[in-house]
Amino acid sequence: MENPGKERTVLLQEVGPRDGLQNEPMTLRAEVRAELIDQLAETGLPRIQIGSFVNPVKVPQMAGTDRIWGLINESDQIRYSVLVLNERGLLDAAAAGVGHVEVYVSASETHSMKNSNASVERSTAAAGRMVQRAHEQGLTVTAGVMCAFGCFYEGPVPTERVLEILDRFAEQRPVEFGLADTTGMADPEGVRRMIRILSKRIDLDQMALHLHDTRGMGLANLSAALQMGVRRFDSSVGALGGCPFIPGAKGNVSTERAVEIIESMGFETGVDLDAVLRIRKKLGDLLGKDLPIETVDPERPHRP
Amino acid sequence: MENPGKERTVLLQEVGPRDGLQNEPMTLRAEVRAELIDQLAETGLPRIQIGSFVNPVKVPQMAGTDRIWGLINESDQIRYSVLVLNERGLLDAAAAGVGHVEVYVSASETHSMKNSNASVERSTAAAGRMVQRAHEQGLTVTAGVMCAFGCFYEGPVPTERVLEILDRFAEQRPVEFGLADTTGMADPEGVRRMIRILSKRIDLDQMALHLHDTRGMGLANLSAALQMGVRRFDSSVGALGGCPFIPGAKGNVSTERAVEIIESMGFETGVDLDAVLRIRKKLGDLLGKDLPIETVDPERPHRP
Repeated sequence: MENPGKERTVLLQEVGPRDGLQNEPMTLRAEVRAELIDQLAETGLPRIQIGSFVNPVKVPQMAGTDRIWGLINESDQIRYSVLVLNERGLLDAAAAGVGHVEVYVSASETHSMKNSNASVERSTAAAGRMVQRAHEQGLTVTAGVMCAFGCFYEGPVPTERVLEILDRFAEQRPVEFGLADTTGMADPEGVRRMIRILSKRIDLDQMALHLHDTRGMGLANLSAALQMGVRRFDSSVGALGGCPFIPGAKGNVSTERAVEIIESMGFETGVDLDAVLRIRKKLGDLLGKDLPIETVDPERPHRP
Repeated sequence: MENPGKERTVLLQEVGPRDGLQNEPMTLRAEVRAELIDQLAETGLPRIQIGSFVNPVKVPQMAGTDRIWGLINESDQIRYSVLVLNERGLLDAAAAGVGHVEVYVSASETHSMKNSNASVERSTAAAGRMVQRAHEQGLTVTAGVMCAFGCFYEGPVPTERVLEILDRFAEQRPVEFGLADTTGMADPEGVRRMIRILSKRIDLDQMALHLHDTRGMGLANLSAALQMGVRRFDSSVGALGGCPFIPGAKGNVSTERAVEIIESMGFETGVDLDAVLRIRKKLGDLLGKDLPIETVDPERPHRP
């Protein structure tokens, strides 16, 4: 922390209440999820994805996301967002009063069909209209690409396809662009390559990375991106998360580990790690499981 | 793999039979360990640490290391080594016929006292003599520094102390220098910083890194070092490993994950990943435990 200031600040978005919980077999009530969100808000996390507006029959874990907004103690220091997959979800978000939405398109045809029952081309066109519609509703938007670093089903994904989707989004001028390693296929070299290419088109300050830890490379990828200038990352308390349409998909980069590695690299997150660890513990109790990150121990003599 | 050749080749040293097994509650007989070593030798791993010559009362898991040398089917394609902690161990290694020894000194006073009951200064002097003695016996040597990136007990370790130890070793001209993140305190920025400093004194082709995954940053650190030019790493099948003198110390970077990340970054290891995965499974059965790496799945449609 030799040089604090904007360029040393990393913005973490907690996605546990969405990406985390939507992949759990147990469904938590909106009241419980709202309490979790309020606790997360008190840790200093600047951004929280509170849920998604999707079909509650398909993803019961996200039922009641509209009610969460009325239940939480909204802090004006925090950007709350929801993930929306279609125009109906977008209008629901706007009606619920959420100020920021995230719209993602998959760069993999196979994943696109499984995730949204539409081709990449059709999804991209629809997503572009959603971003436009969101702006008309006064919402701000993160527009992003899923499977940006490869696909569980298809293997490598052409970089050109990722760029084409982002170019289409760029026409609508969203405040943020997202790149998701939805199935944990990224490696540090691929991350560097992609960011090098993107940095010529997009201000890296507008770029958010959503990384999964499927092959244990989540932190390696985060660290590579941080070094390249990316300052916005999604993470999930307790490394919860996955993808309901990909068998064996592992969780997001954990918020605890993300805070540790980012701060040990001399950046600031503003996040109270001990508070996050307490939430992890509580969340494990709620879900009736040991959350997998066990090696971060507040009792350790030196946790640099 | 656009540019195969020496500079794209990474040498992995398998340390499971030593660092891995010495931390297991169950002791495997020398015969079983020799069979494991032979299986590892068939995967294409170029280097295997077969055990250590230490007090069998203190570390019963390593008892019989002298016999292993007579039991294995030695391959001349492989560098077999043992870890030695004192002159007696060194002479035992020479008598057993092992051609390469590894001598490590801790850069942390507290860890040094716990590990070898001697100060850093005294250990360094003794280790320098051991390297000399090893050379007199016709052995080649890796001379290295434990806790090079920080210590569980002491926190940060002065870089100067690491350099002093390496300078002392350099007088004896070992064929390889080692840097061990014994307690998993390293982060990618610290790794880069250290390598930048060391590269002015030591040929990076002579530098081997021994990383632990205590805070989940093992692969991030490996990837950072690889990018900086380091081409030699220790790893352990199934991520076994730890440190008997440090509570809660987690395992080494796993061989499976190391191979995956190194090859996905465009380097060659020559290691047959599927063969390593089969050994991991067998080793788990032998030790009566699920080895923790579960997400590398040979059945996955795309394992880039």
